[in-house]
Amino acid sequence: MRTVEIGSAGDDRLADYTRLTDAGLRTHLEAEHGLFIAEGTKVITRAVAAGYPVRSMLLGRARLGDLPALGEACQSMRQDVPVFVVPDDVAESLTGFRVHRGALASLSRRPLPAVRDVVGAVRRVVVLEDLVDHGNVGAIFRCAAALGVDAVVLSPRCADPLYRRAVKVSMGAVFAIPYARMTGWYDGLAELKASGFRLLALTPDDRAAPIAGALCAASRVALLLGTEGDGLSARWQDEADLTVRIPMNPAARAAGVDSLNVVAAAAIACHLLTQPD
Amino acid sequence: MRTVEIGSAGDDRLADYTRLTDAGLRTHLEAEHGLFIAEGTKVITRAVAAGYPVRSMLLGRARLGDLPALGEACQSMRQDVPVFVVPDDVAESLTGFRVHRGALASLSRRPLPAVRDVVGAVRRVVVLEDLVDHGNVGAIFRCAAALGVDAVVLSPRCADPLYRRAVKVSMGAVFAIPYARMTGWYDGLAELKASGFRLLALTPDDRAAPIAGALCAASRVALLLGTEGDGLSARWQDEADLTVRIPMNPAARAAGVDSLNVVAAAAIACHLLTQPD
Ligand SMILES: C[S@@+](CC[C@H](N)C(=O)[O-])C[C@H]1O[C@@H](n2cnc3c(N)ncnc32)[C@H](O)[C@@H]1O
Ligand SMILES: C[S@@+](CC[C@H](N)C(=O)[O-])C[C@H]1O[C@@H](n2cnc3c(N)ncnc32)[C@H](O)[C@@H]1O
Repeated sequence: MRTVEIGSAGDDRLADYTRLTDAGLRTHLEAEHGLFIAEGTKVITRAVAAGYPVRSMLLGRARLGDLPALGEACQSMRQDVPVFVVPDDVAESLTGFRVHRGALASLSRRPLPAVRDVVGAVRRVVVLEDLVDHGNVGAIFRCAAALGVDAVVLSPRCADPLYRRAVKVSMGAVFAIPYARMTGWYDGLAELKASGFRLLALTPDDRAAPIAGALCAASRVALLLGTEGDGLSARWQDEADLTVRIPMNPAARAAGVDSLNVVAAAAIACHLLTQPD
Repeated sequence: MRTVEIGSAGDDRLADYTRLTDAGLRTHLEAEHGLFIAEGTKVITRAVAAGYPVRSMLLGRARLGDLPALGEACQSMRQDVPVFVVPDDVAESLTGFRVHRGALASLSRRPLPAVRDVVGAVRRVVVLEDLVDHGNVGAIFRCAAALGVDAVVLSPRCADPLYRRAVKVSMGAVFAIPYARMTGWYDGLAELKASGFRLLALTPDDRAAPIAGALCAASRVALLLGTEGDGLSARWQDEADLTVRIPMNPAARAAGVDSLNVVAAAAIACHLLTQPD
């Protein structure tokens, strides 16, 4: 680790942090350029511990006190990581980041493992179909990790867990739980079925079975959760072994509250799965 | 209901929608001016059904097809509600709103009931201490309503459930469940205790009792949930009858995932409270 003073937000060496301010572009290009951003010493430490190589770090002068902790996080790494130190007004000017809240790090992605490698030896899996909200993806990773689910599997178009907001909301849980992305959507569930997972499709639909009764029997279970808008596709519901619901209050339905948000549904389902009593 | 064509975003009659673009200012001034904004025909319909008076509505020309549904929502109201119809480019230019996604309505707030009036005749209550994130407040209202909790009580500084993002994330559940705001924080719980509620303070702390065992006995239960950062204050934890935890995976703790997000915790706790089996 070596500190490098930089005076201007326009400096090329800050490109990882400054080039992309539009969220959509950023998601896309971060993935393409094989990098992602972690915020805050705690989260950076977790990313490093999980083995992601650090490209650089960025610190406002007001937060120089964070250096020792960052150094400790990097100790295990052999590389010569540059820590860019910028004046506080430059730190403030970096759109979309709150550098005054702590350090940023730019890290390299790694090739994702195959679905089969991630689910091979485990029992309890959450599968996300096409979620679009990065905050929701991050919150579900945090739940899954905290409650002891073994792995997460993503549909091909599901939002990126390493996108800034997902990493942040997950509090670093995206580094604590193994995950993989399916290569195809249409037959994406086939591999899980072949591995002996019982697939439970979660839906608020009244005709589905209450979830509590469906969990006891199976030894390998995959919980399928659908998009914020339309829910699980018909295809995935058909492919599942059973559609299950978390019972809701009938009066709420009458008042127009006809589903839980996907994080709440995931939390309840993961809790029931991991602590059946 | 009468439609009024407006050609420019600068028109004074659009002030409810355009004046305040800064989120902080907006929260503050909306409350002060006694108004709030609902987005989308479904949510507007729920707000109207809950009795909030409509000040005006706003529609981009591309969404004129929504008029009949909005008219239906307003049928019950006697007032002469203006529906402002603007060209699509004006609609696009209103910062922070996605008018192309549907109608906006500006509605009048009503005086909030007292805590005692809201909890007087009910059994199951969620109490939120100083949550700052409007999305989290909205999501908890949605959970509480969907699962059949009777009411929500807010600490004096807890984020506003009628703020735009809270209303949106709640899908209108903020209109479906009664709520009140405490007038003081320090003694805010006294009234609940006096009404015979058993107060359970939710914390990830390992020394707290597992929540499942704590719920069966009591007939009137209040679940206390704390801020995203520091959790419940020491004061409220002391005041509570019992601190309880949702058991977490020890391995996750070791990897630094040391709590659930507050929405996930609320979802699991409300589920256990309303569906004890
Ligand atoms: C907001 S919901 C989608 C609602 C959509 N209208 C539907 O009918 O599925 C997002 C996801 O959360 C899960 N979900 C929401 N409420 C649920 C409930 N009561 N029981 C089981 N799953 C639920 C489902 O997986 C759903 O796909
Ligand atoms: C993100 S947590 C706050 C974490 C904070 N460091 C603490 O120790 O309380 C926000 C709130 O969610 C609830 N919460 C989070 N994890 C929980 C768990 N495992 N059991 C019970 N409540 C939990 C608590 O009410 C907490 O105040």
